[in-house]
Amino acid sequence: MRAAVLHAPGDVRVEEIAEPAITAPTDAIIRLSAACVCGSDLWPYRGIEPIDAPMPMGHEYVGVVEEVGSEVKNVKPGQFVVGSFATSDGTCEICLSGYPSSCVHRVFQSGTQAERALIANADGTLVPTPGMPDADLIPHLLAASDVLGTGWFGAVAAEAGPGRTVAVVGDGAVGLLAVLAAEQLGAERIIAMSRHASRQKLAREFGATDIVTERGDEGVAKIKELTGGLGAHSVVEAVGTQESMNQAIRSARPGGHVGFVGVNHDVTLSGEELFFSQVHLHGGPAPVRQYLPHLIDLIWQRKISPGKVFDLAVPLDEAAEAYKAMDERRAIKAMLTV
Amino acid sequence: MRAAVLHAPGDVRVEEIAEPAITAPTDAIIRLSAACVCGSDLWPYRGIEPIDAPMPMGHEYVGVVEEVGSEVKNVKPGQFVVGSFATSDGTCEICLSGYPSSCVHRVFQSGTQAERALIANADGTLVPTPGMPDADLIPHLLAASDVLGTGWFGAVAAEAGPGRTVAVVGDGAVGLLAVLAAEQLGAERIIAMSRHASRQKLAREFGATDIVTERGDEGVAKIKELTGGLGAHSVVEAVGTQESMNQAIRSARPGGHVGFVGVNHDVTLSGEELFFSQVHLHGGPAPVRQYLPHLIDLIWQRKISPGKVFDLAVPLDEAAEAYKAMDERRAIKAMLTV
Repeated sequence: MRAAVLHAPGDVRVEEIAEPAITAPTDAIIRLSAACVCGSDLWPYRGIEPIDAPMPMGHEYVGVVEEVGSEVKNVKPGQFVVGSFATSDGTCEICLSGYPSSCVHRVFQSGTQAERALIANADGTLVPTPGMPDADLIPHLLAASDVLGTGWFGAVAAEAGPGRTVAVVGDGAVGLLAVLAAEQLGAERIIAMSRHASRQKLAREFGATDIVTERGDEGVAKIKELTGGLGAHSVVEAVGTQESMNQAIRSARPGGHVGFVGVNHDVTLSGEELFFSQVHLHGGPAPVRQYLPHLIDLIWQRKISPGKVFDLAVPLDEAAEAYKAMDERRAIKAMLTV
Repeated sequence: MRAAVLHAPGDVRVEEIAEPAITAPTDAIIRLSAACVCGSDLWPYRGIEPIDAPMPMGHEYVGVVEEVGSEVKNVKPGQFVVGSFATSDGTCEICLSGYPSSCVHRVFQSGTQAERALIANADGTLVPTPGMPDADLIPHLLAASDVLGTGWFGAVAAEAGPGRTVAVVGDGAVGLLAVLAAEQLGAERIIAMSRHASRQKLAREFGATDIVTERGDEGVAKIKELTGGLGAHSVVEAVGTQESMNQAIRSARPGGHVGFVGVNHDVTLSGEELFFSQVHLHGGPAPVRQYLPHLIDLIWQRKISPGKVFDLAVPLDEAAEAYKAMDERRAIKAMLTV
């Protein structure tokens, strides 16, 4: 089958690789309906995360179940399913407490920028849609698999809700969908931090009430100015750099909540600053699976349109261009048609 | 009046200094009924926090109001009061949200290891007791002013409660009172991390169900072993060093809560580790004022005995010995009789 494989920084090739095969009775194989490139795929693409060997890429997915292992009971061949980038058994104490992305049997998904993919822990990971989706719903469902679920977690971790002012650091797909999530969670005011016209526009569509173009200390000062000098109640961090983490923590008021979902790279936080900031800090790999039933329902009822973050669509064979466009920030998020 | 003044690391002297005087209409002056030495007083005593000039010491206090400024309405001369180490106006948005220790008008209290002390923001800071306390209640009320309130915040920030396993890192007065708080909050299992027999004994009295003597990675491994490999639901950090913060974060399960109340010194946290640990992290200067009415009530009804942490009492004039005993860990916490 055809699959996108990263050979070296900047070198994504679509090539023939072996078909996946069921190896555990809890596995499933799906045929991808669409795939996409994640902001986190850019870390190894940019050489910031090392690559030891050619790496099949992709961890976001929607598709049709083709085959299941002997113990799989919750999904069956022919069903259209959405799953999370972190597979989970759905039965351990950590899953049951709402953190499937830290399941004791977690496997981080890979290899979904391909025609087919093996999904471990199928019963605890895959959620069937109510039926076969119309074609126009597929980008929205695909977004639920990671960027929507991750933005949602960021907003939940930041305790976005009625009466709250929410600031979002990062205008990538996750940040934009954190805006959508904050709006759905009932936030009173949503401040998107962005200096790109097209992203500002989408942020407004998703529910942003204010745009702040300043960054770093100036961005923090602007958030304070908009919040009576106190800072936001809730801040979502959706980048993962030292600057963005500092900006997020410093933009929150004492007692406020920072939800951080950008995968942290070379970030160190000062214990003393955190102590005196008195913020709540919570983040990590988003427990997307716990939100999927609700997110699929919202999408199925056409109440939300998270797939708008896909502003580029190319065939799987042109994955290299999709990476390049995202790397150069020409595209917010690129979909790969399979 | 007599007061304890730190002149240089290790050099505490009790000497005559000027009487305090009301300077703002929101001030009050109290006559101390007892004072005490805090673990955080040891930071400058040990030279870890710099001293620019002779520093009047002490921020924990109970006493009788002697004089109030013209705008003070909630307390009056003759009342016995308990206050927090962080004064607060009680009316700002941050106070009203439950974080008086980050009040926009906060003043960190100082100079209470003395015969009298000036308390800023008296209306929002001081809580009168139902009447003049019996002498045996004074140590318990004094503990409420900081160490009990701080341990309580640690347990609240760690979301200690029914069904939860709580681990407490640090066996100083704050750690021991976090054990008491966790017990009061209904925690199912409370693991005190201590290698000192006398402190272990007090931890058991306060409600600890398990004692772990190992530290660092071995301590973490022991907590995992006691919690089915997952880690504790709630961890209270009550030291403030790099080792204790790491131990606390690593002892919590994914989705668990770490409440950190040890004043952090030279601590840096890895963003990546925090991300993948998926813990909730919350701490800072404890919002003691918000807990005082409840804590005073528990003490007044003799339901809790937090003053047991005072295992040394000396007259104010012997403050130097009190500091020395705590520095050498001969005393858990020293009371100064005024």
